[in-house]
Amino acid sequence: MKWNAWGDPAAAKPLSDGIRQLLKAALGVDGSSATEPDPSQVRLRPSALTDEHRQALEAIVGAEHCRTGHLDRLLHAGGKSTPDLLRRNGSDIQDAPDAVLLPGFDLDIAAILEYCGNHRIAVVPFGGGTSVVGGLDPIRGDAFTAVISLDLRRFDALHSLDEVSGEAEFGAGVTGPAAERLLGERGYSLGHFPQSFQFATLGGFAATRSSGQDSAGYGRFDDMVRGLRAITPAGVLELGRAPASAAGPDLRQLLLGSEGVFGVITRVRVRVHPTPETTRYEAWSFPDFTTGAAALRAVTQTGTGPTVIRLSDEAETGVNLATTEQIGEQQITGGCLAITLFEGTAEHTASRHAETRAVLEAHGGTSLGEEPARAWEHGRFGAPYLRDSLLAAGALCETLETATDWSRVPALKAAVTEALTTALADSGTPALVLCHISHVYPTGASLYFTVVAGQRGNPIEQWSAAKAAASQAIMNAGGTITHHHAVGADHRPWMSREVGELGVQVLRAVKATLDPAGILNPGKLIP
Amino acid sequence: MKWNAWGDPAAAKPLSDGIRQLLKAALGVDGSSATEPDPSQVRLRPSALTDEHRQALEAIVGAEHCRTGHLDRLLHAGGKSTPDLLRRNGSDIQDAPDAVLLPGFDLDIAAILEYCGNHRIAVVPFGGGTSVVGGLDPIRGDAFTAVISLDLRRFDALHSLDEVSGEAEFGAGVTGPAAERLLGERGYSLGHFPQSFQFATLGGFAATRSSGQDSAGYGRFDDMVRGLRAITPAGVLELGRAPASAAGPDLRQLLLGSEGVFGVITRVRVRVHPTPETTRYEAWSFPDFTTGAAALRAVTQTGTGPTVIRLSDEAETGVNLATTEQIGEQQITGGCLAITLFEGTAEHTASRHAETRAVLEAHGGTSLGEEPARAWEHGRFGAPYLRDSLLAAGALCETLETATDWSRVPALKAAVTEALTTALADSGTPALVLCHISHVYPTGASLYFTVVAGQRGNPIEQWSAAKAAASQAIMNAGGTITHHHAVGADHRPWMSREVGELGVQVLRAVKATLDPAGILNPGKLIP
Repeated sequence: MKWNAWGDPAAAKPLSDGIRQLLKAALGVDGSSATEPDPSQVRLRPSALTDEHRQALEAIVGAEHCRTGHLDRLLHAGGKSTPDLLRRNGSDIQDAPDAVLLPGFDLDIAAILEYCGNHRIAVVPFGGGTSVVGGLDPIRGDAFTAVISLDLRRFDALHSLDEVSGEAEFGAGVTGPAAERLLGERGYSLGHFPQSFQFATLGGFAATRSSGQDSAGYGRFDDMVRGLRAITPAGVLELGRAPASAAGPDLRQLLLGSEGVFGVITRVRVRVHPTPETTRYEAWSFPDFTTGAAALRAVTQTGTGPTVIRLSDEAETGVNLATTEQIGEQQITGGCLAITLFEGTAEHTASRHAETRAVLEAHGGTSLGEEPARAWEHGRFGAPYLRDSLLAAGALCETLETATDWSRVPALKAAVTEALTTALADSGTPALVLCHISHVYPTGASLYFTVVAGQRGNPIEQWSAAKAAASQAIMNAGGTITHHHAVGADHRPWMSREVGELGVQVLRAVKATLDPAGILNPGKLIP
Repeated sequence: MKWNAWGDPAAAKPLSDGIRQLLKAALGVDGSSATEPDPSQVRLRPSALTDEHRQALEAIVGAEHCRTGHLDRLLHAGGKSTPDLLRRNGSDIQDAPDAVLLPGFDLDIAAILEYCGNHRIAVVPFGGGTSVVGGLDPIRGDAFTAVISLDLRRFDALHSLDEVSGEAEFGAGVTGPAAERLLGERGYSLGHFPQSFQFATLGGFAATRSSGQDSAGYGRFDDMVRGLRAITPAGVLELGRAPASAAGPDLRQLLLGSEGVFGVITRVRVRVHPTPETTRYEAWSFPDFTTGAAALRAVTQTGTGPTVIRLSDEAETGVNLATTEQIGEQQITGGCLAITLFEGTAEHTASRHAETRAVLEAHGGTSLGEEPARAWEHGRFGAPYLRDSLLAAGALCETLETATDWSRVPALKAAVTEALTTALADSGTPALVLCHISHVYPTGASLYFTVVAGQRGNPIEQWSAAKAAASQAIMNAGGTITHHHAVGADHRPWMSREVGELGVQVLRAVKATLDPAGILNPGKLIP
């Protein structure tokens, strides 16, 4: 991954003339791209790790796996939110972990945690580095003498595949593509394709309750996790004895979403399925978002079984955001675009497709055929690259997301749109607020917002005000502060409202039991 | 419910001549029924509640809702396991709660918990009283001056029904039939039908992670819970802001399965669906259990979508246990009987039925038509009544259950059968060990065992040894100590092995935060 942008430099998405014209006309952004900064010129806060500590940590992981070089530290300095990227590209002195450790074994991690606990060194577990909520920030406060980044990349094995049960056990550092490759060689697939898929790791998916674009078919990542291992300062947790159990509270669900504050997830055992024989595609047009949302609801509550189902609102459809190759070009459809995909055996997908199309047609949908759905699939990981180009061109671009009950979807969508528009207007810019539904449940759905505006003043502060207004609107309208981006440092102030003050006390009690010295990912998740 | 047997006296199931002959021939049980004991003659430990405490508790709930009468205490003395019923029908002095409180409001419960915390009085939350794992035992230890039973029956309302989202909020004391009646009047259904359905409550379903016979279609109860409210000594928890969330660990999953040790669940918000238009039925025969289990696995992993799917093994099929009206009579089929049901709209059930039958036929199944499936449905809540008659006739009869991955099903089934047979042979009786799969998941299934043997010596001790052997076999073979019966007092010694010593420490930390005085359901769940 690039140090100051999303992902693979070769996959960069330069802005088309169409987008440049749109930016200029709608937002007053001139669209000239900044020159690429030189990473060696970035000023990092000097490493605070003493030689003694460095030598002790090297003794645990080996000298080649304890890195304090400028680029190593820079590449682990944080995640990939818009504020992260703006900060990374800025000229201020930047914070970074004091060292990057690459342990290879559970015992190494246990030893690191023990050493760091004894010497007030904070530990930030690091998977793919794709957090967009400040989940990787090297926060020290007054309590710590140093911060290390614990990179799980060496936990990269497929440990076992049980083809009868449809389960695979992976090291937590296995990335999305590596998992699909390792399984694909054996004829299996995981089916977890979040936007971060190309870089993020299975341990990270578990620690952040990730949800992929195929969640309608294969579930959220937390649905896929059959068991996990976590190394905590207090010992090892091995959780998940059975597919389902009534043996008390489900402690897996405490580690899922724990964001590295309770322990370091080193293994996940996940549900897998045979590589799909067939994929069927169909795109749909709805006259408006309300009609389309009712159609998605009917599909989900009837259980017709699409693998992917998503709906862009009028604004997102208007700029072709769902099909990132064609943004700013001629519209695919008026109204609202919906995408459906069906994976599995030929018979299974045929019946699921037929049932789904019957429901969508009965609810006001018009088929657009295969092509827009294939185009969506082709560009499905492209949006973050587009953000890089927009930021470089002087636009402010960021996303945020929530979920709520179906009955609250209209009010929540209106409230967040209003909050973002008003806050950005206050900063002196018009804003495009685009929205889609990409994860559906029988009782509700996610809402994913993309905001594009002009940068005004300090764009980090500008976005911070807009984000705060949107978060307030989400909570007031009864949504969750995050459906799949997780909490990190950015959503942490909202956790008391999300789970109540008593819920926060429960999290603190679990933290105190598993991480009594409080060294694990401080400043994240728990207020 | 009867004080010394399962359920409704009018639904008693006298033993047929066929069963009596079977008992005599196979187990040497003579089959003469004991006379019905008189509940007024049962000797209860005298109430230890002082007048001062009784008056204080009456002041909270009202005198008419604080009951210390003999029959009130007897009816709250515990659950309905075979040891419970043997003990209840015995002549020893029996323990019972010192008073039964029937609070009507959350504030009453908060006040009761505060009072009891200040005066070392233990509190056992009580729903339908159907625990089969000692979850309601009035355990005092040395720490408590008295034990009260907190009966939730007055929390009996349907608070709201959101037809758009398909969600209903209920008081925790609403029973299974009451929930279906309240929803049915509005055209909806919950679809949760465990064996305890007729008596158990929604709060109890949540507190014990209940799983119903329609779990293939509607999920386990923990899947259905969208949100809940729990009154704890430390305050109120309101959990579940969205259908799904990445806002940290899912704290709902700590209260689900908490068995009253963390707090008193007073409201549950659950997923509901329109009353099914149609039900389709089909029963199947498989040549053996291995073939049948592979067929169920294929159905589940393909996702063909039955509402109910279950498979009896050769022994259970041999005595017609799946269709309780015909036990001991001529066999419906040789080999293994499987039952399938499909609920929903006409189109939906037709396609799900066709897909499922194609998979079952391809995996060696032979259709037996509708009738045996209708017979199963008709008798689906009958088995516990049969147990009453068997116990009265001098047979030992009990059930136990677990779940594991598909790949471990054969070894686990064999190990548990062997453990039960050997332990009961050691006590001097042959044993019938019957087994079925009644809950399926993509990665595994539940195994439910029914044991019938002759009573020998002290039957409580006799069963205790057999149960210990079976539990050991379950844990050694990688199963969970309970798939849907919960932990209570009976499975508590196995929890360290189930979740590890560190997992137990986490549960203790949560308990200390929510119930610092430790008054809630002592002696249950947490070792």
